[in-house]
Amino acid sequence: MKVIVVGGNGTIGQAVVAKLQAENYEVLTAGRTSGDVQVDMTSSESIEQMFQKIGDVDAIISTAGAAKKVLVEEMTPEDNLVAVQSKLLGQINLALIGQKYLRENGSITLTTGVMKDDPIAMGSSSAMANGGVAAFVKSAAIDLTRGIRINCVSPNVLEESYAQLKEAFKGFVPVPAERVAQAYLKSVAGKQSGQEYQVYE
Amino acid sequence: MKVIVVGGNGTIGQAVVAKLQAENYEVLTAGRTSGDVQVDMTSSESIEQMFQKIGDVDAIISTAGAAKKVLVEEMTPEDNLVAVQSKLLGQINLALIGQKYLRENGSITLTTGVMKDDPIAMGSSSAMANGGVAAFVKSAAIDLTRGIRINCVSPNVLEESYAQLKEAFKGFVPVPAERVAQAYLKSVAGKQSGQEYQVYE
Repeated sequence: MKVIVVGGNGTIGQAVVAKLQAENYEVLTAGRTSGDVQVDMTSSESIEQMFQKIGDVDAIISTAGAAKKVLVEEMTPEDNLVAVQSKLLGQINLALIGQKYLRENGSITLTTGVMKDDPIAMGSSSAMANGGVAAFVKSAAIDLTRGIRINCVSPNVLEESYAQLKEAFKGFVPVPAERVAQAYLKSVAGKQSGQEYQVYE
Repeated sequence: MKVIVVGGNGTIGQAVVAKLQAENYEVLTAGRTSGDVQVDMTSSESIEQMFQKIGDVDAIISTAGAAKKVLVEEMTPEDNLVAVQSKLLGQINLALIGQKYLRENGSITLTTGVMKDDPIAMGSSSAMANGGVAAFVKSAAIDLTRGIRINCVSPNVLEESYAQLKEAFKGFVPVPAERVAQAYLKSVAGKQSGQEYQVYE
């Protein structure tokens, strides 16, 4: 079983890679500057080129996506485009383009996040992307054929990043990346589709 | 109380306008080619110009937004941009730009839809936009000051449109536009913020 993890060098990505390798999956990682293959998620051409390089896979995982942190009252349409291009469309285009390179019974697993369900200040652009990805996943699942499945994982703030993020996430109870990685394994190894696995505790 | 209804000539928009006028609101309508003022929601400049024409308001309502109907397996990143530019960013940019023209204790009410919660074939692009708007609303509510509120309304398929849409929505129980309009009135006249009013029955 061959799996590509886009964002495989991030905190969640590394935990997902470790979890999958422990289960004997063949894992490739992709990142903007790191990983086995390079990809710019904001470019459809770059996503297409990545898949042409690595060939068909059994599972596509994204643990990547950026967003700008800004209060709604100061947010411009341009500020919001960072999340639109990366966290929202970067991930959805990975699914739209990647589905052509998925083997029968393959899976797609994207990443949302707790901020859409438990908002924080300056989090609206990220929340928007999270909500868009989650709704896309739920709806796309019923269109897909060939046994192909699609899910997403919504992690809480991570223990590993909490020192840097604690001002924004005061009172949140962070979860370890290893716990979050279990949800990606469940998505890849299981049979469910159209689900959002919320790893909030 | 002065209210602008973008999409005021649509089926929901007309019902919202009638409901608000019956409550003695001063209602202006905006549309691409119809209404008291013209606006192209896919253009930030056009949104800004609309508000410069109409001046400050007490409530901004959007009942507008387009999306392309296409199966996920046939959907290209370009197909998906219709919903991104219109139903998602058109509405969010109306909120981001419009907030500067809102009087104290003003409100913003956007529109999502049942397809994000109860998916139909070829509905993923629309669902994505719905989910993005709903999550943005929930999160943006906590950032806003000056008593400004933001909500959205998620209508089921309408009785008035069901004849044309029944193939796509078989088994759905449509709701009258008048019933949906109540939720917009609740959003404008009430004190709640960050809510999605689901009018599914």
